[in-house]
This record gives sequence, C-alpha cells and structure tokens, in this order.
Amino acid sequence: MTLVNAQSRLAARPVGLPQSSDWTYAEEPAPEAGDGEFRVQVEYLSLDPAMRSWMNAGRSYVPPVDIGEVMRAAGIGRIIDSQHPDYDVGEYVYGVFGVQRYAVSDGSGVTRVDTSLAPPPVHLGVLGYSGLTAYFGLLDVGRPEPGQTVVVSGAAGSVGNIVGQIARIKGCRAVGIAGGPDKCRWLVDELGFDAAIDYKAGELRSELKAAAPDRVDVFFDNVGGEVLDQVLPRLARGARVVLSGAVSQYNATEGMRGPANYMQLLVNRASMTGFVIFDYADRFGEGVAQIAQWLQSGELQSHEDVVQGDIEQFPDVLLRLFTGQSTGKLVLALEGGE
Amino acid sequence: MTLVNAQSRLAARPVGLPQSSDWTYAEEPAPEAGDGEFRVQVEYLSLDPAMRSWMNAGRSYVPPVDIGEVMRAAGIGRIIDSQHPDYDVGEYVYGVFGVQRYAVSDGSGVTRVDTSLAPPPVHLGVLGYSGLTAYFGLLDVGRPEPGQTVVVSGAAGSVGNIVGQIARIKGCRAVGIAGGPDKCRWLVDELGFDAAIDYKAGELRSELKAAAPDRVDVFFDNVGGEVLDQVLPRLARGARVVLSGAVSQYNATEGMRGPANYMQLLVNRASMTGFVIFDYADRFGEGVAQIAQWLQSGELQSHEDVVQGDIEQFPDVLLRLFTGQSTGKLVLALEGGE
Repeated sequence: MTLVNAQSRLAARPVGLPQSSDWTYAEEPAPEAGDGEFRVQVEYLSLDPAMRSWMNAGRSYVPPVDIGEVMRAAGIGRIIDSQHPDYDVGEYVYGVFGVQRYAVSDGSGVTRVDTSLAPPPVHLGVLGYSGLTAYFGLLDVGRPEPGQTVVVSGAAGSVGNIVGQIARIKGCRAVGIAGGPDKCRWLVDELGFDAAIDYKAGELRSELKAAAPDRVDVFFDNVGGEVLDQVLPRLARGARVVLSGAVSQYNATEGMRGPANYMQLLVNRASMTGFVIFDYADRFGEGVAQIAQWLQSGELQSHEDVVQGDIEQFPDVLLRLFTGQSTGKLVLALEGGE
Repeated sequence: MTLVNAQSRLAARPVGLPQSSDWTYAEEPAPEAGDGEFRVQVEYLSLDPAMRSWMNAGRSYVPPVDIGEVMRAAGIGRIIDSQHPDYDVGEYVYGVFGVQRYAVSDGSGVTRVDTSLAPPPVHLGVLGYSGLTAYFGLLDVGRPEPGQTVVVSGAAGSVGNIVGQIARIKGCRAVGIAGGPDKCRWLVDELGFDAAIDYKAGELRSELKAAAPDRVDVFFDNVGGEVLDQVLPRLARGARVVLSGAVSQYNATEGMRGPANYMQLLVNRASMTGFVIFDYADRFGEGVAQIAQWLQSGELQSHEDVVQGDIEQFPDVLLRLFTGQSTGKLVLALEGGE
C-alpha cells in the first residue's frame, strides 16, 4: 500500500500578511524509509511566528524556504516504519519534518518525545522550543534579579506567557503586554501576572508607568514596532532588552520599522541583545528538566491552542498568529490516520 | 576693577540644525569668588555634539539647559582669584564652567590640569572626555579581542579617531567611517587605520564588505541613522555595538530614525549597549594614565581643531560639528585677556 503524502509547499514570497495562495497543496507518494532510516507519520505541527520570516528571501539565522519546497515546520509524529537500529515503530519523535503528513529521517535533529510526561502538544510548547526560548532568553540573556520588573510583549503567545510565569517563579514583578482585554484578564487571573496591559487600548505609555512604577529592568520583546518604542523610555538604569522576535513587523509592507527611541539605551545604560535558541542546544536538557519540574509542582502552567485539521488548513491556521486569534502555543493536530 | 563676563545663553529650543539665533550674547559683571571659592578665567571651551541634545527639553542622561541659562560647556581656565584653601591663583583647572568668560567654583566637579604634560586643548580631547569615552567605550563595552575587526563611525571626530587608534594598539583591524576623501586619507595615512570608508560616496555597504571581509566584531557608533543600518547586517556572530552617539539624528526635524535593521542583532546574536562616560568616574585615573603613556610612546596621536575666537563666535564654531567641517577635537580658544 502506498501512502499519500499531503504537503504544503511554498508558492510565493509574500509582501505583507501571507495569504493561503502563498502555499500550494500537493499530494505525492510518501517516501520510503531506507537502510538506517525511519518513517514518521506527523500528528502535530508547531505553528510559529518565525515561519513568516522563513518565507522571505535573504540571510537570517536559518536559510529561507525555497519556492516549491515543502514549508519548514517542526512537529511531532509517530514512527510507522523503521530500518534504524535505535528507533522502533510506535515511538513518538520531534523533528523539523515540514508541513507534510509523512517524513523520512535518519534520526539527525530528531529527539524522542516522552508522552508519559505530557501529551505531544505540550512538548511543542512549554517543553519544546517555546519553553526553552522563554527559559534561556529570560534567565541567560535577561538575567532578572528577585524584586526586579520583567515586562514581556506578545505576553499571551507561546513564549510570552511562559516568560511571565518564570519571572514570577524567580521573584520578579511580571507585566504582560497583549492585545485585547480577554488576553489580559487571562494573564493576570489565570497565569498570575502582576499586571497586563492591552496595547490596543492606546494608552500603553501611561499604563506602563502605572504597571511598572519602578521602571523596567528586563524587557523580553516578541513584538517590536510601537510597543518596543514605548517601552524603551521606561527602561531602568542598566536594563536588558531581550530580542526574541518582532511579530508586529514580519508582515510590514514598507520595510521594518526600527526603534526610534533606541538612544534610550544610552540614556539608561541599557543593552539590547539578540539570541537564537539553537545556540543553547547543549543546555536543552537542563532547561527541559527545570520546566518539567515546575509543571509538576504546579508553579508553571502550560497552555496550548490545539486546532484539529489537515494539511490543507495549515495556511489559515498559521494566519491566526498574525491576527491575534491565538493564545498560548498554536498547534495543528492532523486528523485522520494512515 | 569689575570684569565683564561675556556669555552665551540659550534663547530657543531649535528644531533641526541650530542657528546662531538660538543663543543670545550677554554681558554682565563677572561673579566674585566668595569664601571657599575661586574664580576662573575660561581660556578653552570644549565643543561637543552632545551639546545639541542638551538644548532639547526632556529627560536625558543630564537635565536640559533651561531657556535663558548660560549654555552648558566644559572648559579649561586659569584661576585668577582664590579664597579656596586648596586652589592657587595661576593654576589651570577643568570644569563645566559654561559658555562664558568667567566662572566661580567651590571646586566640586573641578579637576586640575597638568599643563606640563600637554597643552590645555589636549586635556579637552584625548586626555579628557573624548579620550576616556573612546577608551572605556571601546575596551569595556566593546571588548575587542586581538585580530577582531573594529568599525567606528564619525571616525574623524574627537572620539572616533581615538577609538580606531586604540583598536590598532590592541591588535585589531581598525576601519573608520567618515565623510569625505580628505578625512579618510587622514585616518589611514596619518593615524594608521587599516581602512576608511567615505559614507558620502554612497557605497557604504559594498565598501564595508571589502574593508571588513571577516565582518564586524565591534561597531562603535557615534552617528546612527543610515550608517548604523548599513553596519548591522555586516555584524559578526556575537558582535557588540557600542552606542556612543547619534550625531546624524540630533538635528532631525521629523523625529529620530530608528535602526530598521535592528533584528540583525538577533540574526547575529549581537548586542547593542549604551553607556555614559560619567559612570566610569572612579576609573578615570586608570584611563588617563594609560592614554598619557600611549601619547608619550607615540602609539597614540592627539589631534585638536583649535579655533581662536571669542564668546560671540561660539554658535558658529559649534555648528562646524554638524556640517562636517571639523576633524579631531573641536576647541574654541578664547582670545584676549582680563
């Protein structure tokens, strides 16, 4: 029996917000596992804001996806055939399998997923790159001290909500910036943020002053644009700005907007530092172990936005990230079986 | 005999490039030294790009100069009367005496100037804040290692030319960015920079690639704007951007321009850090001693652009900083005597 491999391939490099037509749906025979390989049926796709930047040509921290290529995506799947001595049929594995139903791997870049610890979507979120990005970005790059104020933008997103929770665990004041009153209530009432600011209400500057009266020691920025510009003048002396993303700018049609207030870094003797989570690969074990312990103790909550669908729906589900329709980790759970 | 104190007072907060009419010339009786005070006749005024920012209202690392107030300026003068037990008539002292001919001080914020070591203008330049800014900004914030590439903008300016020279002393490749072929020739032929790029020639990006083939490990930025944006994509992995100034933006009429390429900090795992030289006050001794030794050994050259004039000419001389007409440390040497 030949399996049909449903795929989403990049069709165009969008300017501005991507449209469904920027990908094409394709079906082809699923690849077969050769010697030393195994075949995975992908069950969960991780949908991330960074995917937008992978659609652009030009140098970034990873190469762009080529036109016609299967769209890059991390995911979790189950091994359905194996000619690899170390991997057995039935095991769950994590890897960058792409937006497709089946993938073949020799195991490089693949990690086992312990589904007894938590269901697969949690491994794409708080136990995956989202959690690791929050953990190392906040603690290693941001270096908050107990009693300091941590502000995070995109606070209701997959990384942002964890940043604020870890800040609380570390004894900091956690302030989230998110879009809309529902997300803000969720951050404060459910996740224990000290305060949350709805940037859409248009009073970011004054609300920031009220929510962070001792100024901002660490700003973990997922958003860029106007939000970054409003936070910079509120930095404390020696503050650290952690550059994790700039989701407000990924779909800009007139080029990126730079932070006009960047000289506040001088006024406040502050720094702005970029990081890429892959650089922490040799410490992922430490990060996952700590996060798992916080999950177990109840100090940290995981929140996944799992959408059931198939490969054809990938573009529409991805776009929820850019229209503010998602909270926590956005996961596409693929329906149907073999 | 009452001395006449010629002064330049701030008259208006300019938008864009200042004009002479933004200051008023005034004369009043010179102040008298009271008990525990001394009176200084100012002989040399330090003219600095930062003066432009002191003219603006609003929070910065120092308060703005008020309208009607004597314009803030550092300078060197000779003590002409003293009722202070520690200061004698005839001594040369450095202080923020303002743009005026006479000032009274109780000694706070004042340091003695050793004119046997070098003439006063050198103490305003390489042995003063310009040299200290280059020294601590490059070595403490930029942390270059031997063999790395250091790029400095505003390279022919009072701070920039010293940054490149110290980079050479430390075994780095020194690349300057300056305006015009004469300045570039001076940097390479006279000061020993490895390369210099004339940003006005309009090929900054490609010239930067040629001049810094191994990318940029430290970028010491005095300029901001387009220059900063062009350097960011050429940063090396883990590069440090030292924010020292943004002279291209001080006179912007449509607000500051932020670096649109700032997310290159993420791509390159780089940081951008602001600093204020006053924070290094407890290490000034170390800095001055090292710079003096380099001067003595001939490893470091000092270059002052000393303009003879009087207080009335202060606005016109200051504007040379913003029109690219000055090289090295700009000093106004006040003519005439008591």
